[in-house]
Amino acid sequence: MTLDILLQTEPIVLKSDVPPEAGAVVRFEGRVRADEQGRVIRALIYEAYQPMAERQMEKILREIGQRHPCLSVRVRHRIGEVRVGEIAIVIEALATHRAEAFALASAFMDRLKQDVPIWKMKAVDA
Amino acid sequence: MTLDILLQTEPIVLKSDVPPEAGAVVRFEGRVRADEQGRVIRALIYEAYQPMAERQMEKILREIGQRHPCLSVRVRHRIGEVRVGEIAIVIEALATHRAEAFALASAFMDRLKQDVPIWKMKAVDA
Repeated sequence: MTLDILLQTEPIVLKSDVPPEAGAVVRFEGRVRADEQGRVIRALIYEAYQPMAERQMEKILREIGQRHPCLSVRVRHRIGEVRVGEIAIVIEALATHRAEAFALASAFMDRLKQDVPIWKMKAVDA
Repeated sequence: MTLDILLQTEPIVLKSDVPPEAGAVVRFEGRVRADEQGRVIRALIYEAYQPMAERQMEKILREIGQRHPCLSVRVRHRIGEVRVGEIAIVIEALATHRAEAFALASAFMDRLKQDVPIWKMKAVDA
């Protein structure tokens, strides 16, 4: 299972390049919403311990990949200011069949929130 | 929950147009693989009872949407010849939070295979 994981300050543009053995592509995008716990915002500021966050994401994907083996997985996470409507996180899982791709992407998002040192440092009011 | 469902003979190109209240976008693509039950193929031919298939997909989405409410859902399904590597089916679910979007997309795919009159009429050998 090949992994490609990156934290980045620039907007996320992830072009798909899908090999013919992949019958299933599951892509999840998490976007910044205008409503942050009841406040109307225009952006969120994300911070991370960068090398540790990337290592941790890789570790989590290897672990989940044991149960739900996929062909390849790409993850992009923004850090710094991310405006409302922009993508903060993308995970794209390619697999032979769909069950593994859905399960891996969904389980990764649950673990990301708990176990990866990336956090919303503050919200910028609208 | 707005629905946009279409069977089409042309290749699927689905541009995302995501409103700011959508915090989660889950997109699943099912693609034709070169290996169809042990045979090496170059395409699959899909057939459908078109109006009934579209109605049935809508009914299934309304039903699943009761349990997993999303903001909007788009489905595209190819009919006719779909070559290896091409997208046969896409579902894109937009929701406020990710759990609903993952659950709806995944449940829809399970139901599609069981309950919608679209079938692989034949495989074209490579």
